[in-house]
Amino acid sequence: MDPVYLDNNATTRVDAAVVSAMLPYFTEQFGNASSIHAFGAEVGAGLRTARRQLQALLGAEFDHEIVYTGGGTESDNTAILSALETRSGRNEIVTSTVEHPAILSLCAWLEKTRGAKVHYIGVDARGRLDIDAYRKALGPRTAIASIMWANNETGTIFPVETLAALAHEAGALFHTDAVQAVGKIAIDLSGSDIDMLSLSGHKLHGPKGIGALYVRRGVRLRPLIRGGHQERGRRAGTENAPGIVGLGAAAALAQEHMEEENTRVRDLRDRLERGLVQRISHAVVTGDIENRLPNTANVAFEYIEGEAILLLLNKAGIAASSGSACTSGSLEPSHVLRAMKVPYTAAHGAIRFSFSRENTDADVDRVLEVMPGIIAQLRQMSPFWDGESKTRTAFTPTYA
Amino acid sequence: MDPVYLDNNATTRVDAAVVSAMLPYFTEQFGNASSIHAFGAEVGAGLRTARRQLQALLGAEFDHEIVYTGGGTESDNTAILSALETRSGRNEIVTSTVEHPAILSLCAWLEKTRGAKVHYIGVDARGRLDIDAYRKALGPRTAIASIMWANNETGTIFPVETLAALAHEAGALFHTDAVQAVGKIAIDLSGSDIDMLSLSGHKLHGPKGIGALYVRRGVRLRPLIRGGHQERGRRAGTENAPGIVGLGAAAALAQEHMEEENTRVRDLRDRLERGLVQRISHAVVTGDIENRLPNTANVAFEYIEGEAILLLLNKAGIAASSGSACTSGSLEPSHVLRAMKVPYTAAHGAIRFSFSRENTDADVDRVLEVMPGIIAQLRQMSPFWDGESKTRTAFTPTYA
Ligand SMILES: Cc1ncc(COP(=O)(O)O)c(C=O)c1O
Ligand SMILES: Cc1ncc(COP(=O)(O)O)c(C=O)c1O
Repeated sequence: MDPVYLDNNATTRVDAAVVSAMLPYFTEQFGNASSIHAFGAEVGAGLRTARRQLQALLGAEFDHEIVYTGGGTESDNTAILSALETRSGRNEIVTSTVEHPAILSLCAWLEKTRGAKVHYIGVDARGRLDIDAYRKALGPRTAIASIMWANNETGTIFPVETLAALAHEAGALFHTDAVQAVGKIAIDLSGSDIDMLSLSGHKLHGPKGIGALYVRRGVRLRPLIRGGHQERGRRAGTENAPGIVGLGAAAALAQEHMEEENTRVRDLRDRLERGLVQRISHAVVTGDIENRLPNTANVAFEYIEGEAILLLLNKAGIAASSGSACTSGSLEPSHVLRAMKVPYTAAHGAIRFSFSRENTDADVDRVLEVMPGIIAQLRQMSPFWDGESKTRTAFTPTYA
Repeated sequence: MDPVYLDNNATTRVDAAVVSAMLPYFTEQFGNASSIHAFGAEVGAGLRTARRQLQALLGAEFDHEIVYTGGGTESDNTAILSALETRSGRNEIVTSTVEHPAILSLCAWLEKTRGAKVHYIGVDARGRLDIDAYRKALGPRTAIASIMWANNETGTIFPVETLAALAHEAGALFHTDAVQAVGKIAIDLSGSDIDMLSLSGHKLHGPKGIGALYVRRGVRLRPLIRGGHQERGRRAGTENAPGIVGLGAAAALAQEHMEEENTRVRDLRDRLERGLVQRISHAVVTGDIENRLPNTANVAFEYIEGEAILLLLNKAGIAASSGSACTSGSLEPSHVLRAMKVPYTAAHGAIRFSFSRENTDADVDRVLEVMPGIIAQLRQMSPFWDGESKTRTAFTPTYA
């Protein structure tokens, strides 16, 4: 039986068409894009096409608003560090408690070593940002507000346009980590208040090791990596031509499949969620059900350990995850679910199933088939579980 | 006729075997290496092999001394910035006037904005470092000395072991930009004094967008990019598995071909140089002829413009370069040749031919066939050239 891959928020399979687009740039058009001879020039044309493809997916008005990087983390770091350097007299950052480590570890380090002040805005039980607190945290000392477009664990979508407008009222820049949003939901940066946006190729069936930072025209960028004049002096290093071409091709495919993502893929996700909750007691869907990425399901199975569930799923040929891939291995429940005040007994047993256009009905069937047995087996061994017979109500999120 | 590619110091063709090694990691073993399920685990094995392959090429004692990055520039930046942060009380850098922009632009920025003091050590007419000046510049305030292993334009090799030992005497760290050396000459870091070493995949028939920083065990590294726990917390971001596997495969191939590089490839380079100097008057080989990379020829054709030569070469299907690819387009002669005090009339007409194991005798024949005509044609149009008949001696480097 083919394995079932439901960990697309961790990374995706590179689309075969993306690989085909990249291949010539390894062995044929392999020149250095900055060279003046034919080997360089041939590459230049491919890079221009790729830039237009990504520009189209983002609705960016100018193609030079895109700066290629080595991935989402580099993009996130560049945005925050640049804001601190270019907004003189402002050393505060406003962000959320549920950001990815690419933002949170950097912020922690800036607080510790750079005298930056970071405001971590909390979320409610659905994972929605406390907008009042956000507004209050903004002020004349805010260099940048950085709030993710969509959360990687629950899929919860944040009102980034509103948040960007509020940041601008305070004279601050606004950045959004859209690593999970790009390719899954429509994005249109033309006429938007968003100053900077991060994305990563491998989350949308593109290659690993390539990402981009969108930087609105007129917004100053201080490079994180200095050297040659590549990317108009904003990110040095020989252009990763196969990676850039692959990201462009992935962007074009994502645009084609956007509708499918929000219909067929969403339906698969919904069917899985409903099926799990119907078949398994004390199974609770977390996140903002009304405003989520179409591909992400985060289900907490109370009274058991997520890692144990994952191991049994893996044995059954099903890949899913708990928390983010970067923090797996730790025994603490995810910082996102903790921020949402999901009770420990539930947060510990939270599993993220993240779909892509490659998933099928059969995948959902397989999970629905094996999951009840896995949960029952683990609950039997759980010291916290005292039997299905007990009358007890499951943890219920406020909106249930 | 197949084009002739003699710009391998700018970038190399990815070896077909490297592409084959990478391919499965795009569409089959595509998982996130940090994931606990089978898709992640499969990738882990590939990454371990790759790390051992690179370790072997470098002679690194421990595999965790290798930190993957997005390329040579990122490696260089990481090394310098880390030293400034981890060597408290030391804010001076000792480097050379002939480094790559990946070091020089960073240093210029550190001087301007961080109060760092940078000592730029000069070179002689052959491009050899002024070791006395280097020794004098080192002191109790030196955080790091960074001298390239081999120069990208002339191929001149620096005595990095001696330089590293001198840096240690002053209590400073020693880093070397070995982007051009790795894969071309033997490197053995076991028992070496070198603390950090930068390399870049695409210079050794590996992929673009992947590089590494060797960090000797016990040397503290402050990450440039923060986020997840990848690379033992020293470089965050989802592992670029295809890139890492490709770099490993390229390292293994480079090791196999090291002998050929230093015999057959060297002979091709030497034959080209001799042929050009014999056929063309006022053509001078620059760099340290006795101690150079085996693949690099830098020949200055007096009284004409390098860019014009390159355009005519390009028309003839031959790719070469002047200066480094990152600074091409500028009309200033290369900073390396200026540092060597090559006269302007010669430095302006300098062309770098850089070979690889893919080059053949036929390539050398082609260049020798077309070059005399190109030079004669351009000199006829040159305002500085007053005819072959004039008795005039060519600029001669001191060692000629
Ligand atoms: C000596 C040297 N250092 C650093 C680099 C930068 O490497 P990359 O362009 O892969 O970042 C290069 C090549 O461009 C180089 O020749
Ligand atoms: C929301 C979010 N931001 C940033 C990242 C980091 O991207 P990358 O691992 O490509 O650097 C990820 C994924 O790992 C993510 O999910």
